[in-house]
Amino acid sequence: MRLEVLDTTLRDGAQSGGMSLRAQDKIRVMRALDSLGVDYIEAGMPAGSETDARFYEIIKHEKPLVNAVLCAFSSTCHPACKAEDDENLKACAFSPAPVVSVFGKASEWQVKRVLQTETSENLRMIEESVRFLKNAGKRVFFDAEHFFDGAAENMDYSLECLRAAARGGAEILTLCDTNGGSLIGRVSDIVRRVNSEFAGMLSIHAHNDSGIAAAISMAAVSAGVVQVQGTVGGMGERCGNADLCTLLPNLILKMGYDMKAKECLKNLTHLSRTISEICNFTPDRRAPYVGSSAFAHKGGTHIDAILKDDRSFEHINPKIVGNSRRLLISDQSGRSAVHSRLLLAAPDIKRDSPEMDKIMLAMKKKAAEGYRYENAEGSFELLALKAIGRRKTFYEVIDFHVLCEKAIDARNAMAHIKVRVGDSEEINAAEGDGPVNALDNALRKALSVFYPCLEKMRLTDFKVRVIDSGGTASTVRVQIETTDGERVWSTIGVSPNIISACFKALTDSIDYMLTFLDKPMA
Amino acid sequence: MRLEVLDTTLRDGAQSGGMSLRAQDKIRVMRALDSLGVDYIEAGMPAGSETDARFYEIIKHEKPLVNAVLCAFSSTCHPACKAEDDENLKACAFSPAPVVSVFGKASEWQVKRVLQTETSENLRMIEESVRFLKNAGKRVFFDAEHFFDGAAENMDYSLECLRAAARGGAEILTLCDTNGGSLIGRVSDIVRRVNSEFAGMLSIHAHNDSGIAAAISMAAVSAGVVQVQGTVGGMGERCGNADLCTLLPNLILKMGYDMKAKECLKNLTHLSRTISEICNFTPDRRAPYVGSSAFAHKGGTHIDAILKDDRSFEHINPKIVGNSRRLLISDQSGRSAVHSRLLLAAPDIKRDSPEMDKIMLAMKKKAAEGYRYENAEGSFELLALKAIGRRKTFYEVIDFHVLCEKAIDARNAMAHIKVRVGDSEEINAAEGDGPVNALDNALRKALSVFYPCLEKMRLTDFKVRVIDSGGTASTVRVQIETTDGERVWSTIGVSPNIISACFKALTDSIDYMLTFLDKPMA
Repeated sequence: MRLEVLDTTLRDGAQSGGMSLRAQDKIRVMRALDSLGVDYIEAGMPAGSETDARFYEIIKHEKPLVNAVLCAFSSTCHPACKAEDDENLKACAFSPAPVVSVFGKASEWQVKRVLQTETSENLRMIEESVRFLKNAGKRVFFDAEHFFDGAAENMDYSLECLRAAARGGAEILTLCDTNGGSLIGRVSDIVRRVNSEFAGMLSIHAHNDSGIAAAISMAAVSAGVVQVQGTVGGMGERCGNADLCTLLPNLILKMGYDMKAKECLKNLTHLSRTISEICNFTPDRRAPYVGSSAFAHKGGTHIDAILKDDRSFEHINPKIVGNSRRLLISDQSGRSAVHSRLLLAAPDIKRDSPEMDKIMLAMKKKAAEGYRYENAEGSFELLALKAIGRRKTFYEVIDFHVLCEKAIDARNAMAHIKVRVGDSEEINAAEGDGPVNALDNALRKALSVFYPCLEKMRLTDFKVRVIDSGGTASTVRVQIETTDGERVWSTIGVSPNIISACFKALTDSIDYMLTFLDKPMA
Repeated sequence: MRLEVLDTTLRDGAQSGGMSLRAQDKIRVMRALDSLGVDYIEAGMPAGSETDARFYEIIKHEKPLVNAVLCAFSSTCHPACKAEDDENLKACAFSPAPVVSVFGKASEWQVKRVLQTETSENLRMIEESVRFLKNAGKRVFFDAEHFFDGAAENMDYSLECLRAAARGGAEILTLCDTNGGSLIGRVSDIVRRVNSEFAGMLSIHAHNDSGIAAAISMAAVSAGVVQVQGTVGGMGERCGNADLCTLLPNLILKMGYDMKAKECLKNLTHLSRTISEICNFTPDRRAPYVGSSAFAHKGGTHIDAILKDDRSFEHINPKIVGNSRRLLISDQSGRSAVHSRLLLAAPDIKRDSPEMDKIMLAMKKKAAEGYRYENAEGSFELLALKAIGRRKTFYEVIDFHVLCEKAIDARNAMAHIKVRVGDSEEINAAEGDGPVNALDNALRKALSVFYPCLEKMRLTDFKVRVIDSGGTASTVRVQIETTDGERVWSTIGVSPNIISACFKALTDSIDYMLTFLDKPMA
């Protein structure tokens, strides 16, 4: 049987402290997850928050997913309430998601102590909630919350909960190690026992509180589950969920499972970083497979050995998951990818030309400063042009000053700027909501005198990311997205000074418009 | 048999990219590790670097360790060289460490392909190197590098390597999963097989490249090893080593092993943070047991359940490992959750008091501005105090100016500030890497005149998030984390002006320290 994957980054992952995604961000994460080849994408509760409600509204008008099926989420109905009166269940029934995960308690202790209801009432809630959704035409997965702790204390009751869900029509029964405290022996034993009754219906949902979520999930697969659940980067509350970026390669490459994600494995590193970026989740550089240090080699003997044979200190070839080896000496990874992104800027450059060497070298230098071009293609194209001596200069910023004064809120920054275009100089000034906005306003005001097209420019996104932890002296990466009403382009700036970083991203954005304005966009 | 622990933070952990410790730092880490109750502390090679040489020199004059035994480190001698001529082995023989770990290849493929010598010569190198140290009066542990990969390909030869070490006089044989690629089944099988010949002599040394280093170590313990190796926080090259902060509680609390570290478990969180601090290693807030989010709860239903019974969503009581519960406050948090966060700031406020209404109202107002308190507990407590009229004023910032000028990089910002404390005023100025850093520097410089304790403050994290997409005029949310070396607190500021947002977070952080400094932390 094929092993399936349910990604819950948008649901359980979003429980991470500090994460708050806009509906549009969730759509972007969903698209990236779809490219990752997961089978199901569990999103939030349609009636849970305004953001989630908007997400499900937007979905209705979006083009369908390629690999994955969307899965809504709800609890069962409440004690002494009917399923058909439950707002969350109703919202799921009317949502565009073909699948709904319903969670309910599968532990006698939790039912009595936390839910404070009768064990039989809990069974009724489970069965009715599942049946309600099934009758509404949904495929239903039942999340058996606290299953392993419950089963360890009273296996019979935990099994009754699964039976109730199965009677209601659930097609998948998810065994949850909700508190993340189970060890492998217990999980293997319990899964084997449950599998004797529910073969082909079980899923595993592990949390990392004991630091072994991936191992537990793998043990459950060996013991018979047909679906694994997890999140990108192991996002999730407390210690997080099982990390799909670890689990997928382990299952596919090491345990030999046939999975839809197999075809997409080479995108794993890229997609995991894209998703982390959207979620403003700092990716762990030591993460297995996808971390920037996962294949980084330090120390002479290790590097010597790697140069003799990369099997000497690498458990897999990093290319398989789209990552790359990092040595102190040259690595050629990505030449084809880099070349493929030059179609607009320099279509005549051949993959093996000396110009390509220059571009690769320029990129490596910038990477060392903290530049990442995955979400800043505009800046990448300008960098490539510069590396081969083709970047045009449209103006020179001779000087600028930005002054901020104490004020409890906003509009307390002033910038003045002096630019030169040809033989003409222009001095101008503007105020703004903070120093970055003031500088942006002043810069465009001054340059629009020479290039009126810049008046059409409008920033649509502005992201700031701290990329090392030196407190307020940290290096920051600013990424902006600009539109002229028709096209959209993204640029980047990196500096320990946020004003410098923004200035770089802003001038790149202006340069991009002036360079490529009359050409067709990629 | 008692299970022993060898900590290799100062050796394998120091291989982490970016880590460089001074000899005095290593002494401090060694003392902290000793308090953690580990049995052996493996430090670097006495002839490996100047720092390590100095470390072993200093050791000679230091007072003895309480719990642990120091362990030096060396490779075997080289092919075609005698052990007694090897500089590293000689340095170990003359070092003050009573134990020496010697590593050698235990894989036929590695010997032939990387060492490029005869398999018999490798056996000679192992046996002679161990015997040389044994004759010099040392206890010797043999690190069988690449053991699992080697054993999977040619078990006989890998066993021959162990036999050579045993003949030389090794008392512990460490089975290393050097490349971190092994899965649990393989490790269990191989350990069991090897244990039939070397019972009571085996140790496990796992790397985390497959994300299961802790699970592998636990499986090896179940299969018979008597020693586990790892590092604090899982420090180490690539994806790191097995994390002792996960392994120790798992082995002691969940698997019931009797270990020296058992008595010290309540210091685990504190010591892991101290060691991370010295190593300038950013601790993972999601780390099992010791992470600041390991017992953090978000979402109304989880918090309500925790308040009914903490067993509902916690696998252990956080106090056992010296950590603490955090109920993350968000705008959807119920009254109970908010109330439970007031224990430190206002312990006398009752859940149903009118003061609670004021606090709830203040939170809602702030939420509408974009404030999120789940990772800003310091700011939440100050807000609560303010809402009920109890927030003290320690100083007034009368004015500040921040000036940025064009410069391609860094250190181009200057801030001056005027503060008043009582009847005294202080005007001061500072420069910095960007406007935020300059303001931070100036503010603390001016206030330290009145409050010298602020000099101990150090920012450990700084996050900026754009929370709406108005381009450079977007509202930004700044979250900072501060430490005084012992405690950690987090604060927040929101404004369309990034300088204002930072200013709010910084002043909250200072106020927090001044308000709660002399009180015990929750």
